[in-house]
Amino acid sequence: MEKFSRNQRIAAITKILVEKPNKVINLNNFTEIFNAAKSTISEDIVIIRDILNKLKIGNIETISGASGGIKYACNVSEVEKEKFANELCFILKEKNRIIPGNFIYMTDVMYNPEMVHKAAAILSLNFNKLSIDYVVTVETKGIPLAYEVAKLLGVQLIIVRRDSKVTEGPTVSINYLSGSSKRIQNMSLSKRSMKRGSKCVFIDDFMKVGGTALGIIDLLREFDSEVLGIGVLIDSVENKRKLVNDYISILKFNGISEDGTAVLIPSENKK
Amino acid sequence: MEKFSRNQRIAAITKILVEKPNKVINLNNFTEIFNAAKSTISEDIVIIRDILNKLKIGNIETISGASGGIKYACNVSEVEKEKFANELCFILKEKNRIIPGNFIYMTDVMYNPEMVHKAAAILSLNFNKLSIDYVVTVETKGIPLAYEVAKLLGVQLIIVRRDSKVTEGPTVSINYLSGSSKRIQNMSLSKRSMKRGSKCVFIDDFMKVGGTALGIIDLLREFDSEVLGIGVLIDSVENKRKLVNDYISILKFNGISEDGTAVLIPSENKK
Repeated sequence: MEKFSRNQRIAAITKILVEKPNKVINLNNFTEIFNAAKSTISEDIVIIRDILNKLKIGNIETISGASGGIKYACNVSEVEKEKFANELCFILKEKNRIIPGNFIYMTDVMYNPEMVHKAAAILSLNFNKLSIDYVVTVETKGIPLAYEVAKLLGVQLIIVRRDSKVTEGPTVSINYLSGSSKRIQNMSLSKRSMKRGSKCVFIDDFMKVGGTALGIIDLLREFDSEVLGIGVLIDSVENKRKLVNDYISILKFNGISEDGTAVLIPSENKK
Repeated sequence: MEKFSRNQRIAAITKILVEKPNKVINLNNFTEIFNAAKSTISEDIVIIRDILNKLKIGNIETISGASGGIKYACNVSEVEKEKFANELCFILKEKNRIIPGNFIYMTDVMYNPEMVHKAAAILSLNFNKLSIDYVVTVETKGIPLAYEVAKLLGVQLIIVRRDSKVTEGPTVSINYLSGSSKRIQNMSLSKRSMKRGSKCVFIDDFMKVGGTALGIIDLLREFDSEVLGIGVLIDSVENKRKLVNDYISILKFNGISEDGTAVLIPSENKK
């Protein structure tokens, strides 16, 4: 059988790990692919781990036991976090982004895979240690971001719908008060989408006063499940009093300035 | 300045490439990170390219010229494609997935990052050479799949909405006839979301007769843009006459069998 060089194994193992964040991969997978001893693969992994740590772009954890193996998690350095937040501020402050009603047009950012991946990587760092079961979002604009966070945390994504669909079977629906417009809104979730007693993280694109987040907390209570963390790309500090306390964001929005641009600053999330 | 070993460079370069599929990365990025000569980095990349090709898990293209560099694209071997299609069949044939109205419950699959990533990788192979500008989908269930395809193709995602939203500015709306239920439905897209004269790929979870796909073609015509390819996870062969001709799928659905399970087989997409 063919043998592979250390260089070759390292490239392939890195590729496989990066595509499966937070999933435990047994070393036997690699010994089979590369026809190599476990000790050889372990040495490869030490090299990969060291350089990912050194550059602060990732980490590899060793899980011992029969169902053990290794588990890759992404990382983002403080420098990169700051760079990304500043870049995002710069983009979203463009004058032509202001939409009647003082909204910021940010759909292009929310659907840009490169930016979404970076934002998700930064948000996911706060939830890596929580051992959650699901990432939850509500349709539509936050879905790519929530999907990436779910992928990086190695869990299933759950999308709460605005109305129930025939293709999803029996659903649980709740009404909630959207914090900003004070309108009663509906959200619903397929009964079979979530195991009872689950731990979740809620991800969204924008938080105004947190009405949606509170609605999600209520909805998940119907599944005996709880929200352990909340992450949004942008939260508005225009409304000082939020309906939820514990959340992280990448940027803070403080209204529209007199020159007609959005007032945005990087959030300081203390961990 | 610190020097890095070949092993270290290979691990880090692989990680960076895999996270930015189909984006041209200038070699200067790597010479700076690793304080190494361009020729050294080129040798690293030859090693990475060779092993990715050998294992049929990826490819690295060299783009010459001033704005040149290297570009990574994922690959999936025929064996892996077949394995995935069979695995997906197996999962979706579970008896308890049939929902009143003879729908298959497949939300959990569509929101499972590992499965979505694999499906997207397989679909993206068919569109890699088209040099498209956007991947388009319609909310909600196909969004994660479309997002992954967009990411793998290195382009922006566009999500067509069922109704227009205040946060997206002026929109273009069309009515279309959903092929299966013969109902008139609405879809809308923010005017600023797409450049005129764009080339797109449409991605969705399920195609019945292709009414939605036809609607997307009509909608994009309003943007002087065209659909160069269509990819879905599952297409139904219950309706022989489709409204669109050219599309690829991973599975074919042929109704519900007498024992109450879905009839599904892997598609044979000839290229």
